[in-house]
Amino acid sequence: MSHDRREAGFKRRTRVADALATLLDAAEPHGRTGSVPLADADGRAVAEPIDAPAPVPSYDRAAMDGYAVRAEDTFGASDRSPAVLRAAGTEAESIAPGEAARVHTGSAVPEGADAVVMIEQVESVGEEVEAFDAVATGENVGETGEDVADGQRLFDAGHVLRPSDIGLLKSVGLDAVPVYEPPTVAVIPTGEELVQSDPGPGEVIETNGLTVSRLVERWGGEARYRDIVTDDEDALAAAVEADLDADVVVTTGGSSVGERDLIPEVVDGLGDVLVHGVALKPGHPVCLGVADDTPIVSLPGYPVACIVNAAQFLRPVQKRAGGTTADPFPTRRAVLDRKVPSEPGTRTFARVALSDEEADDEGANVSTDRDGGEANLPAATPTRASGSGILSSVALADGWVAVPEPREGLDAGEVVDVELWEVTP
Amino acid sequence: MSHDRREAGFKRRTRVADALATLLDAAEPHGRTGSVPLADADGRAVAEPIDAPAPVPSYDRAAMDGYAVRAEDTFGASDRSPAVLRAAGTEAESIAPGEAARVHTGSAVPEGADAVVMIEQVESVGEEVEAFDAVATGENVGETGEDVADGQRLFDAGHVLRPSDIGLLKSVGLDAVPVYEPPTVAVIPTGEELVQSDPGPGEVIETNGLTVSRLVERWGGEARYRDIVTDDEDALAAAVEADLDADVVVTTGGSSVGERDLIPEVVDGLGDVLVHGVALKPGHPVCLGVADDTPIVSLPGYPVACIVNAAQFLRPVQKRAGGTTADPFPTRRAVLDRKVPSEPGTRTFARVALSDEEADDEGANVSTDRDGGEANLPAATPTRASGSGILSSVALADGWVAVPEPREGLDAGEVVDVELWEVTP
Repeated sequence: MSHDRREAGFKRRTRVADALATLLDAAEPHGRTGSVPLADADGRAVAEPIDAPAPVPSYDRAAMDGYAVRAEDTFGASDRSPAVLRAAGTEAESIAPGEAARVHTGSAVPEGADAVVMIEQVESVGEEVEAFDAVATGENVGETGEDVADGQRLFDAGHVLRPSDIGLLKSVGLDAVPVYEPPTVAVIPTGEELVQSDPGPGEVIETNGLTVSRLVERWGGEARYRDIVTDDEDALAAAVEADLDADVVVTTGGSSVGERDLIPEVVDGLGDVLVHGVALKPGHPVCLGVADDTPIVSLPGYPVACIVNAAQFLRPVQKRAGGTTADPFPTRRAVLDRKVPSEPGTRTFARVALSDEEADDEGANVSTDRDGGEANLPAATPTRASGSGILSSVALADGWVAVPEPREGLDAGEVVDVELWEVTP
Repeated sequence: MSHDRREAGFKRRTRVADALATLLDAAEPHGRTGSVPLADADGRAVAEPIDAPAPVPSYDRAAMDGYAVRAEDTFGASDRSPAVLRAAGTEAESIAPGEAARVHTGSAVPEGADAVVMIEQVESVGEEVEAFDAVATGENVGETGEDVADGQRLFDAGHVLRPSDIGLLKSVGLDAVPVYEPPTVAVIPTGEELVQSDPGPGEVIETNGLTVSRLVERWGGEARYRDIVTDDEDALAAAVEADLDADVVVTTGGSSVGERDLIPEVVDGLGDVLVHGVALKPGHPVCLGVADDTPIVSLPGYPVACIVNAAQFLRPVQKRAGGTTADPFPTRRAVLDRKVPSEPGTRTFARVALSDEEADDEGANVSTDRDGGEANLPAATPTRASGSGILSSVALADGWVAVPEPREGLDAGEVVDVELWEVTP
């Protein structure tokens, strides 16, 4: 029996959830923080809890165009019997009993007033104002702190800011926000067959490192896209070691158990291999390790396997290093139009293309449907039954369906959640 | 009857879908294109159809580690009766009948060979190679063009590139790609009550323009975030006119029918008002227009109304200007835990916060469930029953549920698709 024959295959494959938990246990937030102006803060992870330093609104404000009044002065008013009030100046600072002051939406309610009569319910006749409807105390008034209370917790540390969050931070009077620096992620493509261009026979253009480095940036990191390293243990060790100052090191290729799969040994030499071989398809030959407290994610060289594993392991550990956590991918519900095979015990990712939904209106949103009506759902068509080397099966897909470990395949006609792991905003 | 009393309210509100169609009809792709290196192309819209200039792989390649053979030389081989072949050199360029050449995954299959015997099925004994299994013609061989055929259409114009697309483009030998320039979007906040900081009574910090400008950038545009313009018709007209060289002009505030709502008149003076008042809530007082062929989206000043309308109208028209189309927002399925009221005929957007899903594993994906099992779905809790002025009801929400026009509210317990309009990758 040759050495080759004994070596092929993994003895044991770790479950995806367990592998990820092990990797995350070996990672810590990097802790480098700084303050950035709000205009530059979209997508950044907040570094400490943010409480509102002031209430919004900071005064009682009119919620409608109309007249600010003492509510009790309008009691009993109706279309046939209006309350007749004295006109105070427009946006007066205060009113006396029996007075009404013209206010606009958002303007301060004058002292002495406690409600606003809508402009539609009022007629102004010379020095007099007739209110045709009674208002209750507080009616059409936005109270101080109605939107945000003074001192209210707005965001916990680790929250990733979005445009509306940035508006909210500005509304409470902030102009900058403490955030984590983006985690640095070194991406090292490996493989003696790789070239950057003009491949000859037996040569392959490097794509994994480029793709992964773009994913790193999408996921909020700063990618160091490194030169190709050939299958030489010393060269690989030197390359990985040189990047251990990054928050995460990623390699692509050479992560399996063949004679040219040197990465696990290299990681073992520099630190510890935590997991080698995961029960996921396509892409079980992933290797997860750590050296000098830097997590090392060694992705398989097959393009699809590389991407699937990047989504499962790199994304969460990179986010952890950057002080936040990975949300589940957004999904689109769809009806599977072909069977998807899978092996029980293995989490399988089936790439699918989504057909157009029933034409509604361009840019309009999917809307809810009383019966969860499948009639309006798009069809999800597997782009390739198998083949972890087929980059086009990912690139030409809209997402993937994850078949959970207990299931043995999915049936045609099943309603599935397609994970949009590369969704465009 | 005062002038005020007559003017309040809209006579007619256009359906969302019709309003959007009208706006999009008035917009054209700007047509400015350029070539960018692949590393800078993530998120950019492709400017012309892209066909593969070369096949992938560009040669027949081994799909497994093993020995390249003529399939017919292995016919009849079994564990007990191996086919005995002569060893050719490792990765030989060609083999003769009866020979076998060691190959690695991805290496070129030598001329004369048409299949690969997996390494696990082979023993190498001196100059001889014993194959313990028969292989069929083509077995374990990735044919030229298997991943991408020569000349295959990869992307149509308007496709927005993602990381895996960038890998695919590189794999066919490209190093740059023709894309549309980002559309320019001028964002003009209006309102005499607005200040950039330190609000006094009756003053409000400008947030809409900042929020919208961050949305513009997320959606692939280039935002010009302008100074605040007060409620003066000449000043507003001058500000809008100065930005008609942008691909889209957006104003915030002053879009309704009150005496200080000057924007519709300003747009009418510069060009045409196409739609004023849309059957959507919160935020019906939106005004859509066009001047000098530049679409003008005038958003209401209430923060929530502003954001809802930006998502409905600005996003699609900005994408159109940039040569692409707006995908529906990604969604997360959830169970509504409170009733959401709505008015039939009006599309209502209810902001909701999502509770944590049942703890699975951090960063792991939502998985499909045979019965669409609602047990595992997160709860969607409306963040505020009403109030279009409450910025925190959006900023502290995870998304919104769109109640379609024919429905009169949604019931507690309904399964809904929560639109993640600000999802973090």
